[in-house]
Amino acid sequence: MTKKPLILVTNDDGISAPGIRTLISVMKTIGDVVVVAPDSAQSGMGHAITLNSTLYAEEVFMNDGPQKEFTCSGTPADCVKIAIREILDRKPDLCVSGINHGSNASINVIYSGTMSAAIEAGIEGIPAIGFSLLDYSWNANFEACKSYVKTITENVLKNGIPNGIVLNVNLPNIPETDIKGIKVCRQAKANWVEEFDKRKTPQGKDYYWLTGKFVNLDGGEDTDEWALENSYVSIVPTQFDLTAHHFIKDLNTWNLND
Amino acid sequence: MTKKPLILVTNDDGISAPGIRTLISVMKTIGDVVVVAPDSAQSGMGHAITLNSTLYAEEVFMNDGPQKEFTCSGTPADCVKIAIREILDRKPDLCVSGINHGSNASINVIYSGTMSAAIEAGIEGIPAIGFSLLDYSWNANFEACKSYVKTITENVLKNGIPNGIVLNVNLPNIPETDIKGIKVCRQAKANWVEEFDKRKTPQGKDYYWLTGKFVNLDGGEDTDEWALENSYVSIVPTQFDLTAHHFIKDLNTWNLND
Repeated sequence: MTKKPLILVTNDDGISAPGIRTLISVMKTIGDVVVVAPDSAQSGMGHAITLNSTLYAEEVFMNDGPQKEFTCSGTPADCVKIAIREILDRKPDLCVSGINHGSNASINVIYSGTMSAAIEAGIEGIPAIGFSLLDYSWNANFEACKSYVKTITENVLKNGIPNGIVLNVNLPNIPETDIKGIKVCRQAKANWVEEFDKRKTPQGKDYYWLTGKFVNLDGGEDTDEWALENSYVSIVPTQFDLTAHHFIKDLNTWNLND
Repeated sequence: MTKKPLILVTNDDGISAPGIRTLISVMKTIGDVVVVAPDSAQSGMGHAITLNSTLYAEEVFMNDGPQKEFTCSGTPADCVKIAIREILDRKPDLCVSGINHGSNASINVIYSGTMSAAIEAGIEGIPAIGFSLLDYSWNANFEACKSYVKTITENVLKNGIPNGIVLNVNLPNIPETDIKGIKVCRQAKANWVEEFDKRKTPQGKDYYWLTGKFVNLDGGEDTDEWALENSYVSIVPTQFDLTAHHFIKDLNTWNLND
């Protein structure tokens, strides 16, 4: 009998979020699951790590299965680091993060705590996937995600992922019967146009809330945004070598050493 | 007479750090400077943004020149967003971030608040550079940085940078006379091996400090780590399209839609 894969599950919405509970339920059908997730919501944390403060990690009992679960007071990247170094007995065969409540497609990947956890695992040489559903609400319906999460996870365990790459999976917020399939994509060139909502404290001091709208000016039909708008699940292979290799030649023509 | 460029200066160590004070002093010789920097140290914040909390921004008077300066209660990425949307009258011609107290070479780029500010500006279509000195101490000596910071900045203003790319510049911590020049590099494939320093609170509860050592297993002589170890200033062109384009073809051979 083949040994079951050891799967580390984490997220950025916190251990009690419906998205991670769904992800755990799917992973339990595939392997042995250990959960190490933030003790509170960490959205928008990017690839933050806790350098100047203390970290707590403790076992919690969620009463929905045999898996061991731990909360950590840090960021999603901290959760992966502490799982690997302090909690797990061996290197996991896979790390899955999510299912995030809200999109991590396009430029959102760089602000994403969900993806930072997957990337942290990738840096450690662990195959990793971040999953996100295009519904920001706490009560989002994750039912339609389950079969796609399972298919993609099983493919990753079967095929492997090259070193230096993790997968960024986003799921459209539509009924399962309307989903047309899974598309491999590139990250759309889109961004947020922020609007700062300026207010006054009761004491009369100005403060701001960050708000904004998402603008996609990328007309390509090979992007994650296109796939999601056209009822596909998107997969973007995502790397953490940020070198713009194509610009190195041009940069070498600059007069930097005259 | 040519109009002077408008230069936005920010960092992640906070507005009073010697690194940003040095950067401001160099930028004042090149253009009109506006500073919008965190009101406290933000190291290790990655590309965090403030979504679930309020933001403050206020003018401060640092008594060292004509430039306007503002502190922001948020992250480096927040500083750039609020500078562009709320503080500046027009889009800046350049954004510089740093000079960071400590390396942002190799994998450090993804944990870096300094670089997240530069990337945020890049997303907005503003040429941007992050500068870092390989000395973590508050009293680091930034004198040797000045001429290199100036040369690189003037080259960026003259040559421009393509959309989607920002520059990650690291400077070795050696006397100026020992620096051999500037090298265009790729990001080294290296990582941190964390060690969690486990302690007990006075009340007997376990907690951790994140520590670790940097391990470079990349033998390439075209990397930023190699350049820095060999007394060069490194420049890595850095992109925020994280798509691993080279893996898309392979991924399309997976059985995702059977």
